[in-house]
Amino acid sequence: MSEKHIGKQTVLFKNPPSIKATASIVGTKEGKGSLKHSFDYIIPDELWGEDSWEKAESKLVRETLAKVLQKGSMSNDQIDYILAGDLLNQCIAANYGLRETDIPFFGLFGACSTMAESLSLGSMLIDGGFADSVVCMTSSHFCSAERQFRYPLELGSQRAPTSQWTVTGSGAALLSSEQTGPYIKAVTTGKINDMGIADANNMGAAMAPAAADTILTHFADTGLSPDYYDLILTGDLGKIGKKICIDLLKMNGLDIENRYNDCGVMIFNTQEQDIHAGGSGCGCSATVFAGHVYKEMMKGNLKRVLFYLSPQEPS
Amino acid sequence: MSEKHIGKQTVLFKNPPSIKATASIVGTKEGKGSLKHSFDYIIPDELWGEDSWEKAESKLVRETLAKVLQKGSMSNDQIDYILAGDLLNQCIAANYGLRETDIPFFGLFGACSTMAESLSLGSMLIDGGFADSVVCMTSSHFCSAERQFRYPLELGSQRAPTSQWTVTGSGAALLSSEQTGPYIKAVTTGKINDMGIADANNMGAAMAPAAADTILTHFADTGLSPDYYDLILTGDLGKIGKKICIDLLKMNGLDIENRYNDCGVMIFNTQEQDIHAGGSGCGCSATVFAGHVYKEMMKGNLKRVLFYLSPQEPS
Repeated sequence: MSEKHIGKQTVLFKNPPSIKATASIVGTKEGKGSLKHSFDYIIPDELWGEDSWEKAESKLVRETLAKVLQKGSMSNDQIDYILAGDLLNQCIAANYGLRETDIPFFGLFGACSTMAESLSLGSMLIDGGFADSVVCMTSSHFCSAERQFRYPLELGSQRAPTSQWTVTGSGAALLSSEQTGPYIKAVTTGKINDMGIADANNMGAAMAPAAADTILTHFADTGLSPDYYDLILTGDLGKIGKKICIDLLKMNGLDIENRYNDCGVMIFNTQEQDIHAGGSGCGCSATVFAGHVYKEMMKGNLKRVLFYLSPQEPS
Repeated sequence: MSEKHIGKQTVLFKNPPSIKATASIVGTKEGKGSLKHSFDYIIPDELWGEDSWEKAESKLVRETLAKVLQKGSMSNDQIDYILAGDLLNQCIAANYGLRETDIPFFGLFGACSTMAESLSLGSMLIDGGFADSVVCMTSSHFCSAERQFRYPLELGSQRAPTSQWTVTGSGAALLSSEQTGPYIKAVTTGKINDMGIADANNMGAAMAPAAADTILTHFADTGLSPDYYDLILTGDLGKIGKKICIDLLKMNGLDIENRYNDCGVMIFNTQEQDIHAGGSGCGCSATVFAGHVYKEMMKGNLKRVLFYLSPQEPS
């Protein structure tokens, strides 16, 4: 058991990093959703002046980095590391989006969990004394994800009721060793938890067991109870996965329902927007965290947030 | 500048992690190459009893983890984290290979640099006090990589003279906070360095500028000269990339030629085996490091090794 470990999977920081600034840029559909006022910029269309969706996603990454550095009043040469990834093969959105940055780079693939993974490792790099300033970021894009994981958009395929809508957007957080807050105090790292869900149109069900397992472990490791937090937040289980997660936790004696939400449920207006089971993709939790959640924390409306390191499931 | 930083991109560890054990399992071609006696196991054929190459690659990961834990006399529940990735879309080799481990997992995508990336981050987790035992590992598989990145094997496509042969293999290192050595003393993290090489059959040329840049930075940051090291090792530049790297460094006033080698050049017998410009893939540097290099270090034949964090280029 290392010095900073408590329980099985949780580390407590001795010099917790601050989240100095965040930035988020989203697509048009997200720009009409429930959190539309929380984002820094809404792009005019899915191509944003580029000639492919993949290039547009790289531009989301590039511009979101520029925005978070501007908001944090920092320049590229002051950043020790970027930790980033996306859903595309070979993480091309991050690689092409960041290739001119001249900043040491760690590429991550956590699928929908990439934002939490980057925040986890980024925090450890700062608390461990390896960095003073780290940018943690991810992206996803509805059109590039559909092309890669599902059907050509041109087919106009019918979507299953359980399917989720990959968020077009990029979110970034600038972590700092400066003691300004808000702080990342602890990290509970998840494990791969595959219950054998093979329905590619029901990712919420596939991801929920790992979510529930990590949340249970977090409370067991820390000895905290759910009411310690103002908000317990999963990445993108969507409506179906959220309900499964709540049920699984209740079966294990933990009731989080009155302070639990899911970024995939929050980002769209599920009554008016045709998104079926909710938002998904690593841009979902990244933009909800960098937009709505961070802003509410800075206003003092949210004091303690458990932002969940969700499992690996693509988009 | 954080407390452990020296120079621009290098961190020096205060409590350097030991490499407690390594393991490597390779394919049949690698098992006939120049380093054939250094691997733990050579699989009988590319499918290894599975019904797809991708499943065979997952089995490589699964069995290499079992082997490194056995050699380190440790069980799954004693491992704080696994850091792993591979070349396949959504890193499925690592995900399916490790899903029964019940160990907290960080997924990485560094393409050919993934082994050095996992060793870098794994070392930081131990030196930073977040872990006592970490497994760092990667895999690649010739057939699964060809299917994903190039042509169906059944076509029997002619290979370009500059093309490299993706290594079938998985390599793992068990890092520990125990003070047994050999130690990982420092990490110089690379940056994305894209000189615009667009020839998918000449990855050595694409990767060499980033390799040269990181090596230059390492010596500038540390103030060391190349003769400090018994071996300076890049991942998989191959014959062509190795020569470009040497030339680029000489143009910048650094001569490493008499102590420099490349895992992609070392792993095959380039005279007798039909592999064109050399080996590649993240399994290449992983198995050469876990096999030959670690064994030579344990024998005392290699005392100081610079194992280079190569740039992102797939397989």
